[in-house]
Amino acid sequence: MIFRSATRADVPAILALLDDDEISRSRQQVVSEGDDAACWAAFEAIDADPRNELIVADDAGAVVGTCQLTFIPSLSRRGAERMTIEAVRVRTDLRGHGVGRAMMLWALDRARERGCGLAQLTTDKRRTDAHRFYAGLGFTASHEGMKLAL
Amino acid sequence: MIFRSATRADVPAILALLDDDEISRSRQQVVSEGDDAACWAAFEAIDADPRNELIVADDAGAVVGTCQLTFIPSLSRRGAERMTIEAVRVRTDLRGHGVGRAMMLWALDRARERGCGLAQLTTDKRRTDAHRFYAGLGFTASHEGMKLAL
Repeated sequence: MIFRSATRADVPAILALLDDDEISRSRQQVVSEGDDAACWAAFEAIDADPRNELIVADDAGAVVGTCQLTFIPSLSRRGAERMTIEAVRVRTDLRGHGVGRAMMLWALDRARERGCGLAQLTTDKRRTDAHRFYAGLGFTASHEGMKLAL
Repeated sequence: MIFRSATRADVPAILALLDDDEISRSRQQVVSEGDDAACWAAFEAIDADPRNELIVADDAGAVVGTCQLTFIPSLSRRGAERMTIEAVRVRTDLRGHGVGRAMMLWALDRARERGCGLAQLTTDKRRTDAHRFYAGLGFTASHEGMKLAL
């Protein structure tokens, strides 16, 4: 398994992973999202942005996991970037087999390479398995993650 | 009071606001941070990035509040950006006078102008006043905010 930046060809597989999740499905009505011009524009925006990386876990050509890394420059913490991790998904049939852990360890190494002082993410309070997973990687649930739909 | 993007001339005042906070002070040893080349480089990085905005609340020329807005393109939520808010501060003697509320309402309007689907932030679990403040603006503490120092 390798971890790499996503290409246009990976977008349908990534959208399928994002949609294969009960909590995410409850948030949006997906209508042929693969055809959606806004999704392609978002991919191009991420791909062109040196502070955003859309990552896939590639197992012999199959996309089995994904996450998005955003590197945020900041005046806090002596000017170091912080890495925000969003949209973490592993293919349902492979959960619990170490794919997510390997992907997160890879992402944390990316952050260290860039000199980030902090990695952060938010995870739905209903995802108790995810909390244990991230705690096992060293994350601390020190903050409230507050959201406002616009 | 107006809200505007920060200039280089605002950086010392912003650093003073970021430092004027008990929890933040406990996180870092600030050593002449105003002289720190990394802070200036971070300011230049934010200033040049169309997806990062360092905002100040300007009251007759005095910087009385600050926050940083990051607009993250995403394949989730039909390609809409999400706005992350970081490093929110109001000058100590002005807290509870509506400066923060006005700044957040302004920031949420910025997000709507850009077509963001979601605004999000994390706030330390010890900041119970902040939780009430954000809840009053419509934010829901639906997520765990997990952090890992690198």
